[in-house]
Amino acid sequence: MKIVVLGAGNVGTQLSRALHEKGLGLCQIYNRHRDRAAALAAELGCPLTDDVQCLRQDADIYVCTLKDDVLDDVLRQIPIFGEGLWVHTSGSLPMTVFAPYTRHYGVLYPLQTFSRDRAVSFERIPLCLEASGRQEMQLLKPLACSLSSNVREMSSDQRAGMHLAAVFACNFVNACYAVAGDVMQQSELDFELLLPLIEETAAKVHRSLPDLAQTGPAVRGDRRIIDRHLSLLESWRQPLWADIYRQLSELIYTRHNGQI
Amino acid sequence: MKIVVLGAGNVGTQLSRALHEKGLGLCQIYNRHRDRAAALAAELGCPLTDDVQCLRQDADIYVCTLKDDVLDDVLRQIPIFGEGLWVHTSGSLPMTVFAPYTRHYGVLYPLQTFSRDRAVSFERIPLCLEASGRQEMQLLKPLACSLSSNVREMSSDQRAGMHLAAVFACNFVNACYAVAGDVMQQSELDFELLLPLIEETAAKVHRSLPDLAQTGPAVRGDRRIIDRHLSLLESWRQPLWADIYRQLSELIYTRHNGQI
Repeated sequence: MKIVVLGAGNVGTQLSRALHEKGLGLCQIYNRHRDRAAALAAELGCPLTDDVQCLRQDADIYVCTLKDDVLDDVLRQIPIFGEGLWVHTSGSLPMTVFAPYTRHYGVLYPLQTFSRDRAVSFERIPLCLEASGRQEMQLLKPLACSLSSNVREMSSDQRAGMHLAAVFACNFVNACYAVAGDVMQQSELDFELLLPLIEETAAKVHRSLPDLAQTGPAVRGDRRIIDRHLSLLESWRQPLWADIYRQLSELIYTRHNGQI
Repeated sequence: MKIVVLGAGNVGTQLSRALHEKGLGLCQIYNRHRDRAAALAAELGCPLTDDVQCLRQDADIYVCTLKDDVLDDVLRQIPIFGEGLWVHTSGSLPMTVFAPYTRHYGVLYPLQTFSRDRAVSFERIPLCLEASGRQEMQLLKPLACSLSSNVREMSSDQRAGMHLAAVFACNFVNACYAVAGDVMQQSELDFELLLPLIEETAAKVHRSLPDLAQTGPAVRGDRRIIDRHLSLLESWRQPLWADIYRQLSELIYTRHNGQI
């Protein structure tokens, strides 16, 4: 199997490493900015190009890890799509972005938050697959199963829903960590003190659903604490933090106690 | 050392177990509802009372794990405070709630989310201490250090700030997990699929501060995805989820890209 990875951002970097480590036939990396991918290509001993004209035409699978708004630009410039399978790794793009160019296409969406410099094992990452036909799925699925033990087929609509869920479970969670860190700083305390709490909060939902794990003033409807917290936030001139506090508290209260 | 624990809710249960396991002299449990604490008292082989008149008067430390709004009620009914040290475990109550009753008081606030039926090790939990005097701290600190290796002295103001930070880092994070779970359900997908993402999101901030770990459409300013997510939420008639999505996205965007 010959695999070309397009894009050497967070996802592209981690995926290229995983393909390389598992010996799965990574044979070329494409990146618009050659210099940003040079270290990765050197690390993996893999040919690198920044010119779509130089893409290998004999690969079995082309994995596009490019940003959503870049993907279409790049696709438009590709001279020949050939018989290879083209997949992207986006949570939000429909599979059909490839339809104007080729019949052989699909999606390989890893549900994870990637950073360029933080190694992650693909073994447990849910890989969400979609393909334009049975033959395409038969090529994509074994590759996915070589990378992860958690492979699922799902529709574009399901994937879009999952991507939205991931925004809450990851991006917004991290934003809450960030605000918590700022609040600690206001009180001259280290962010580090919060880590056991952050761990346990994440660990709890491995055993029971979030609604059973909910604690805090909002679920108890403890107006006195809520009001004190809001006036603290307002005294720091953080109206957006206060608004977010108010709305998340309302959400928690109404989930657990019905309408206010 | 003789210790009385007042309250057998989530904190009281876990703290009593920890005191018992470490052989730290737990000698009585008080709970307003005798039946709710009976199983715990039996498990620990510890005398139980539901009558403040029957509180032991010779204990060295009284640890009040009662709800904030119950504590003062109970304190008012206690006939004799004696020479023991009285502490509470609340993140939000000032230390001085005890001042009308005794000179020997303080706070032992464990920064963690407790459930009655989920065992937690106190070993790494930050225990935040405050005491009315040096003598009181000299009694409280060794007890705290026997329970945890992460013991800090802090003021009531710092503890209030920390409690607010904990609401963001735990309660609001869990609320985001809950919404994510509902979004998964809307897409006929299991919550479980999100667990590797939840784990990694929590793990990331052990290595770098949250701002460096931020990913997703909001930090990239990807309007197209944000708008699609908002219309999905609105199509599900979830205006509160949409408002929270909008505000957390604005928070993330402005943190990373300056004012909109």
